[in-house]
Amino acid sequence: MINFNFSQIDEAYQRIQPFIVKTPLIYSEYLNNITKAKVFFKLENLQRTGSFKLRGATNKIIQLTLEEKKRGVVAYSSGNHAQAVAYASKLLGINAKIVMPKNAPLIKIDNTKKYGAEIILYDPTSENREKIGEQIANIEKRILIKPYDDENIIAGQGTSGKEIVEELINLGEKPDLYLCCCGGGGLIAGTSTYMKHKFKNIKCYAVEPKNFNDTQISLINNNITPNKKLSYSICDALLAEQPGDVTFAINKQNLSGGLTVSDDEVKQTIVELAENLKIVVEPGGAVAAAALLNNKIDVKDQTIVVMISGGNIDSEFFYNISKEF
Amino acid sequence: MINFNFSQIDEAYQRIQPFIVKTPLIYSEYLNNITKAKVFFKLENLQRTGSFKLRGATNKIIQLTLEEKKRGVVAYSSGNHAQAVAYASKLLGINAKIVMPKNAPLIKIDNTKKYGAEIILYDPTSENREKIGEQIANIEKRILIKPYDDENIIAGQGTSGKEIVEELINLGEKPDLYLCCCGGGGLIAGTSTYMKHKFKNIKCYAVEPKNFNDTQISLINNNITPNKKLSYSICDALLAEQPGDVTFAINKQNLSGGLTVSDDEVKQTIVELAENLKIVVEPGGAVAAAALLNNKIDVKDQTIVVMISGGNIDSEFFYNISKEF
Repeated sequence: MINFNFSQIDEAYQRIQPFIVKTPLIYSEYLNNITKAKVFFKLENLQRTGSFKLRGATNKIIQLTLEEKKRGVVAYSSGNHAQAVAYASKLLGINAKIVMPKNAPLIKIDNTKKYGAEIILYDPTSENREKIGEQIANIEKRILIKPYDDENIIAGQGTSGKEIVEELINLGEKPDLYLCCCGGGGLIAGTSTYMKHKFKNIKCYAVEPKNFNDTQISLINNNITPNKKLSYSICDALLAEQPGDVTFAINKQNLSGGLTVSDDEVKQTIVELAENLKIVVEPGGAVAAAALLNNKIDVKDQTIVVMISGGNIDSEFFYNISKEF
Repeated sequence: MINFNFSQIDEAYQRIQPFIVKTPLIYSEYLNNITKAKVFFKLENLQRTGSFKLRGATNKIIQLTLEEKKRGVVAYSSGNHAQAVAYASKLLGINAKIVMPKNAPLIKIDNTKKYGAEIILYDPTSENREKIGEQIANIEKRILIKPYDDENIIAGQGTSGKEIVEELINLGEKPDLYLCCCGGGGLIAGTSTYMKHKFKNIKCYAVEPKNFNDTQISLINNNITPNKKLSYSICDALLAEQPGDVTFAINKQNLSGGLTVSDDEVKQTIVELAENLKIVVEPGGAVAAAALLNNKIDVKDQTIVVMISGGNIDSEFFYNISKEF
């Protein structure tokens, strides 16, 4: 049993508000028509550093002691958490070292460097990023900033849910359904906690890439179950091997289940979001919208919140996708 | 002397609020750093129909008498006004006929059809759209919905300025500079009226494509002066031949001058806005940002509002631009 609750998110919001953007919640008449539903999209791709990850990283790093801040931080990440830790560290004058896979999107590696962090590249086919991160933390006495399995990270990500809730209340809307991408599960753990606090009957679903549906399977098994790691997905932000201990403890209380989408469904959704919402979304950031647009769940006549979690996609890849669809 | 003032914009907002999206005002730390300024971008590309034009069209059409509504409407437009008139007409149950150039972006023609309007294509090299529009209005007794030279259209577009002003006041910000695209001048006439009403010292500049700088020249001459029509620009939304009588009367009171940008500067800006703000912007919608990013005016240490007016760009063109930059 875990005691995580909405008040930790309220406290996180107080802490991080000066450092983050209140991201827009938008809708499109056209997408409402084709889905026969009322759909609100939360645009965390418009967050600073291009993803929601800044919320959690800032909430964690800002609470380090002066002595810990002096020692510096280390993080491992496919890219969005990397950028967020680098950016928050720079802002707070802290030295940061980031372990990233050598095949991460260039935009993510470049931006992490731009924010002044030192990058350690590793080979994801043969090396273990958690191990490298922990080694650096031990040897250099740096503080390890985990990507999701930490209540302060989860509370930070949850502030996006607080913004959604407050905006929906202002609009007089009551959502039936919440669709959110899920890698390690930090974003959905935090945001669903706030959503369910204010809207008791909302159903929350984790959306994952096909074959990386460890949260879906773990929910079915009611026990943490790793994915089979048999395949590749373009959703580089969502390739965590298994749910976190803390995130899963929260998610098994909050979630109604999991949905999966294929890479082709994600690509087509990226094109549709560019054409209809006029936004640039990365693959991992588009899975919840892909579940919606590919009828993975019945949405007719319902009010739905769809999380768009990030926009850090290499330009060339983004531009190439359109040729396929 | 024209009597147009902010209260007409307040009234328009009351009328159209249920039909439009309150669009976000966002900023990017990265773009603030490279411009050494504090820049807020108003995202009318996220407006319904993909541009600000819905504001003016709705404010005009909603005020037609029952008898006028029965007769139906006609409009001429390169595309954004077309979509807006078609959409607002559909919403209000009015028959709409739209005169569009046959080389308009496909996305604009397709969407206008999708909203249920009848399209009349014309050849912009040999035919005059105003004349065709007026003929249809006369013969079929339809009400002509002008694209900009009408106080109700200008008041509608001005509601975007009202949203900017209210959000800046909430943020405790006081803008020094406002950069806005300018075709016929409706958007800048309306928005600058509201901006100057609340921020007396703000300097407002019209941004136009090179060789289509009729407003800039007219401001210098203090008299309406058509552009030379010698060249082509990718900014299809900004090719009006000369300022409107009503818009120029307002703009010569409100504007500090005009700036121009080249097509290449606009293309590069579209790529930069996709990469840094994660948004899809059409050429005409990107000129104000292009002026900012190409140092057309000194912005150092200033607080600036940049209008992003629309996002209706053909996907293929959008994706192709990136290869050039």
